[in-house]
Order: sequence, then structure tokens, then C-alpha cells
Amino acid sequence: MAATTCFLSPPSPFILKRTTFSQPRSNFTIIKCSNLSSDPQPIYTSVKSFAPATVANLGPGFDFLGCAVDGIGDTVSISVDPNVHPGQISISHISGDNSNKLSKNPIYNCAGIAAIEVMKMLSIRSVGLSLQLHKGLPLGSGLGSSAASAAAAAVAVNEIFGRKLGFEELVLASLKSEEKVSGYHADNVAPAIMGGFVLIQSYEPLNLINLKFPVDKDLYFVLVTPEFEAPTKKMRAALPAEIGMPHHVWNCSQAGALVASVLQGDVECLGRALSSDKIVEPRRAPLIPGMEAVKRAALQAGAFGCTISGAGPTAVAVIDNEAKGNIIGQHMVEAFLKDGNLKASAKVRQLDRLGARLISSSKD
Amino acid sequence: MAATTCFLSPPSPFILKRTTFSQPRSNFTIIKCSNLSSDPQPIYTSVKSFAPATVANLGPGFDFLGCAVDGIGDTVSISVDPNVHPGQISISHISGDNSNKLSKNPIYNCAGIAAIEVMKMLSIRSVGLSLQLHKGLPLGSGLGSSAASAAAAAVAVNEIFGRKLGFEELVLASLKSEEKVSGYHADNVAPAIMGGFVLIQSYEPLNLINLKFPVDKDLYFVLVTPEFEAPTKKMRAALPAEIGMPHHVWNCSQAGALVASVLQGDVECLGRALSSDKIVEPRRAPLIPGMEAVKRAALQAGAFGCTISGAGPTAVAVIDNEAKGNIIGQHMVEAFLKDGNLKASAKVRQLDRLGARLISSSKD
Repeated sequence: MAATTCFLSPPSPFILKRTTFSQPRSNFTIIKCSNLSSDPQPIYTSVKSFAPATVANLGPGFDFLGCAVDGIGDTVSISVDPNVHPGQISISHISGDNSNKLSKNPIYNCAGIAAIEVMKMLSIRSVGLSLQLHKGLPLGSGLGSSAASAAAAAVAVNEIFGRKLGFEELVLASLKSEEKVSGYHADNVAPAIMGGFVLIQSYEPLNLINLKFPVDKDLYFVLVTPEFEAPTKKMRAALPAEIGMPHHVWNCSQAGALVASVLQGDVECLGRALSSDKIVEPRRAPLIPGMEAVKRAALQAGAFGCTISGAGPTAVAVIDNEAKGNIIGQHMVEAFLKDGNLKASAKVRQLDRLGARLISSSKD
Repeated sequence: MAATTCFLSPPSPFILKRTTFSQPRSNFTIIKCSNLSSDPQPIYTSVKSFAPATVANLGPGFDFLGCAVDGIGDTVSISVDPNVHPGQISISHISGDNSNKLSKNPIYNCAGIAAIEVMKMLSIRSVGLSLQLHKGLPLGSGLGSSAASAAAAAVAVNEIFGRKLGFEELVLASLKSEEKVSGYHADNVAPAIMGGFVLIQSYEPLNLINLKFPVDKDLYFVLVTPEFEAPTKKMRAALPAEIGMPHHVWNCSQAGALVASVLQGDVECLGRALSSDKIVEPRRAPLIPGMEAVKRAALQAGAFGCTISGAGPTAVAVIDNEAKGNIIGQHMVEAFLKDGNLKASAKVRQLDRLGARLISSSKD
């Protein structure tokens, strides 16, 4: 039987109310859940949701920028389960990539933690839920695997109870999961939930800026994942504690250029900015065998830019054409093998503009 | 008689051709002046140009972002002068604010240096020019006074010879002037020439990104200039040499948010980002008496954000309404007097979207 856990139901209807302001006038949306019906009834008996892979950091966007990529991600099915104690959640099944490495105890599982947080926010007390997770993403690949599980679960629970929470609450719920596995960073969970490019301006209060990439522009991500483990903790330990002013100004200007190129749909400029990080990538790339050669190969093959996806080991390059993307991917795979002695696989993907979403529901 | 100077005419038609690429594929416009007619003839006998004041840095946009503000700036008149040796330029008159502090020797005058550079680029050899400068901007106020003189002069020379150079060449010419007075930074000259908001992505090659603020949105700058000298060198010496990673990430994210808010026309978010610098402003503000109180007063009076304009001492606040801007300005002036014991004057200005331009011309 799957492990279960319960959480403390709040004594009164859950109220999520922001009171910390960064300055006197601030335009963030104040989240008030006090008008939610406490302990709402499910409107479906079961739902299935999907959350996409994400590319965080994007070079100079380190720790505050990420985007969602289409076609790959995690799937969560949730059903009302009379065999689960009301107010509790049970993980009944985990399938897919490296599923045996994941705990079925919800408090140690990304999907479980996020699902519990959403149940807390909604003050669910009268029904129990059963969760199935299908991992479409490899663990520790730098493609936001934990975020996709959390985002899919948060959305699934929200949907089964009638979609009472908005993006920000779902990001906050998923952040609880990220906090346990890799740190309190929303650069994967925010785009996994919201889709597209998302900039995290602040956490207290949570200010998220959705950067709309023009719909009439073509943008392809070449994602090349080697068979190599790049633990987030080790990659974080490689970061410099102090940064010289010239490099700070440089990376800031590239971050600005990256944001501008996203909003203006300038894929070449986006690539140039993505490729320009002088602070994080130079420390992390040497820890991933072949990464520097992979970047050179991508650029030589015509990519507009290339960097490490998240904390790695996946390399991400950008281009405006799928066929070119496939060729670039081949060159990157070859470079991983030749210079890093690592087998790797390449995918060419577009931006996922939707983020985590319901893919099916049932009232039976 | 005004001082004159000559410059070495290049032995062959001037060729400005970029050969340094930051990466294999780069989308900057390659500047080729090789198709210019060398030593073109003037199409006017005299021209008058105007270049606006500029606000550089904008908080987290330190050293790479600036914008132009309307209604205040410097004016340059240039005329073909048979009394000036062909290929040379003479400064015949300087008027306006603190004009007696400026050299009439073109190689020591911002307008002169930029004019000489443009004449070099155009290979002017057959006519001499006479230049008059009217300073509408106070010196050393943080409003891009030197940049406005350089930009107006560069544009005037370009116009009198038939506008053969583009924005980038004019920025490069004006940078020669900035280099001599305050350092090789384009965050004043680029917006002074191009108008609006300009992000300097790189210098080698020069990549400038014009950030278009939506025309249907209202944005007002409250500019409050105290009677205080804040030398650029002293303000630059106050900067930290090293920056901790958390502050680096914070300022980068705010720089990204600032760029996004400009392009999306979100004035409140723009103000919040403008106000958020944790690296430069905290070091410089204490060197300007009353600045911290002025910022507090601006925010309390309803400004969306406030910071130091350029290297100061001018304080700049942003708001979406002119009447509110006037009230905010009064509060800021009072705070400068009360907390800094400094007299100050306030102006409320909009974005200058045009940049340096011809305002009159004559063929007589």
C-alpha cells in the first residue's frame, strides 16, 4: 500500500494574505483566499494534468528567469479515493523515468509536497485523494524535473476542486516542494505553471513577470542531455561568493538584453545574451565533461547562443529553425562524446506557452 | 578669437568596419562607411540641433541603461565658415548655464570633440566649420550635460553634410567625448542621440537596444536638482569593487524587471525596479546630503520609484501623472532643504522619444 500522510488542517478557513510591501506603493496582486469556500467539494472524481520541462537561468538570468519547453514533462493523475483518509493524500503509483528512485511518501515526493500545500490552501478536510505520477523527465538533468512534478500536482489538485487558486498560489505551493529538493527558487516552477518565459522579480512579496514572446516568431530550443549526474548542490557550491563590478555590470546588461530580446522576439539577440554569462557558466561548465566543447560546437553549427540549462548537465542552444536545430543537436551530441566521453541525446523543442494544465477529467 | 584645432585627415576615405565578433553569429548592423563620399560638400550653410537631457543608470541599470527626457537640453549651431581653415572647426560662442566654465578649444570641449570625430568619419577636408553651443543643462548635475553637448554637435555636423551617418556612428563619435570627461560609457550619449530608453548590450562590437516605451502610456520623470556638486569621479570611487552573489542576483533580476516594465509600459513596475538597487545607490546616496530622505519623501508622496539620476546629485522619481509629479517634486525639494540643507529645484518631464535632432537649417 502506498504511504500516506496527513497535514494539520488549519483551525479556521485558510487565509493567505500578503502584508509585506517592498515599498509604499507596489502593484502586486494581493492574494486573499479568505473568500474561498473552506473545504470545497471536488467537481471531478479524477483529473489528469501535465506540466512541461523548463529551462532555468538562461545564462545571465541566473536564479530569476526561466522558460517552459513543449512536448516533454511530467503527468499527474489525481482521483477522489474513499480508501484514503479524508484530508489526506496517497501516492498510489509512480511510473516513467527512474521512477524507482522516488519516494511514495508524499512528504518526500515533489508532487506530494505540492499537492499537500494546495490541499492546505483549500482547507480540504472531507475527501481523501490518490495520486499517480508519471515521470516524463529524467531526474537531475537540468530540465526542471522536480518542478514539473510539483507543478502538475498543484494544478491537478486545484482543478479537481474547481480551480479556486490562481497562478501565484500554485507557484507558492510548488515552491514548498522546490525548497526541500533544491532551494527556494521559482525559476523552474513559475514557468512550469505559467508557461512561456517568467521573470521572478521578488519573493517577498512574490512578483512574477510573464514575458510574452511574440506568437509570430520562431524559437527552438536544442536540448542535449548527457549521461552524467550534475548534482544541484555541487553546481551551486561552484558559484563565486563575490563578483567584480565589471562582471556584475556585464551580466546585468546581458540580463536586460535577454529580457528585451524575449519581448521583442529577437531570437539572435536572445541567443547572444543567453551565451554571454561571465559569472555562473564559466564556473559550472568545467564540471560537466565536454560542456565547453559542446557550446563551441553549437555556435559553430549556427546556434544563436548556448549555455547550461538550469544547473546542468543539459546544454541548451537556441535557433529559429527546427531543421537547423536538429543539425546543431547532432554536433552537440558528437562534442559531448568526443570531448566529454559522454553519451548524450538531443531534442529540439519550442516554447511551451501554456504551462501546467488539465489534460483530462472525469465525473464518473 | 575662438581657439581652433585641426585633426589628421585620414590618407584614404574613412572606413569604419567592424571585425570583432563576440560570437560566430551576431546580429549587429555592420557599419560600413566605405560607400560614403569622402569629403562630402555641405548641403546647408548652417544648421541648429538640439539634444535632450538624459537619465542614466536608472537604479539597477547601472552603466548600461539610460533614457532621454524632454524639454531640457543643449543646442548647437554650426555654420560653414570661410574664416575657419578647411577641415577645422572653431567654437565661436558658448552661452547658457555656467558657460564661462567651458573651454572654447574644441579638443577640450564635449561638443568640439564629438564634432571633430564626425568630421573625421566623413573625411571633411574642404570646408571649415564654426560652432556655437548653448548650454541648457547645468554642468555636473547627473542629467547628461556633457552627453547632450556631444550629441547635439555630432548630429549638427552630420546634418550639415547630408546625414550620411547613422545612430551608431554618432554614438561612437560622442563616446570619444564622454571618454575624456567621464569614461567610456554610452548610457547618456546613446539615449541623447537615439531618444527613448536605450540599453547598451556591448561596446565591442557596439550593440544598442532601443527599448520602446508604449506610446499610449503616461510616464513622468520628476527631476529634482540640488545646489550641490557630486563629481563623477568621487561618485565612481564610492562603488564597491566586489559584490556578493545575493545582491548580484537581486540587481540582475531588477534590471530585467526594469527592461520588461519599459517594454510593457508598466510604470508602477518600472518605479519599483528603479527604486530597488542594492549595490550602487546605497553607496552613493549618503554622499549627497538629504538624498535618502528625498527618496523617502518621493515614495511617501506617491512616486512609484526614486533613485539617483546618473552619478547625481539630481534625484529622479517616476509617476504616471503630471499633477502628481508636481506634488512629488515639492516634497522632494522640501526634503533636500530639511535633511540636506540644500536648495533644490524640481522639474516634471516626459520621455523624449526623438533624441538629438535638427531644429533649423539654412541654405543662405
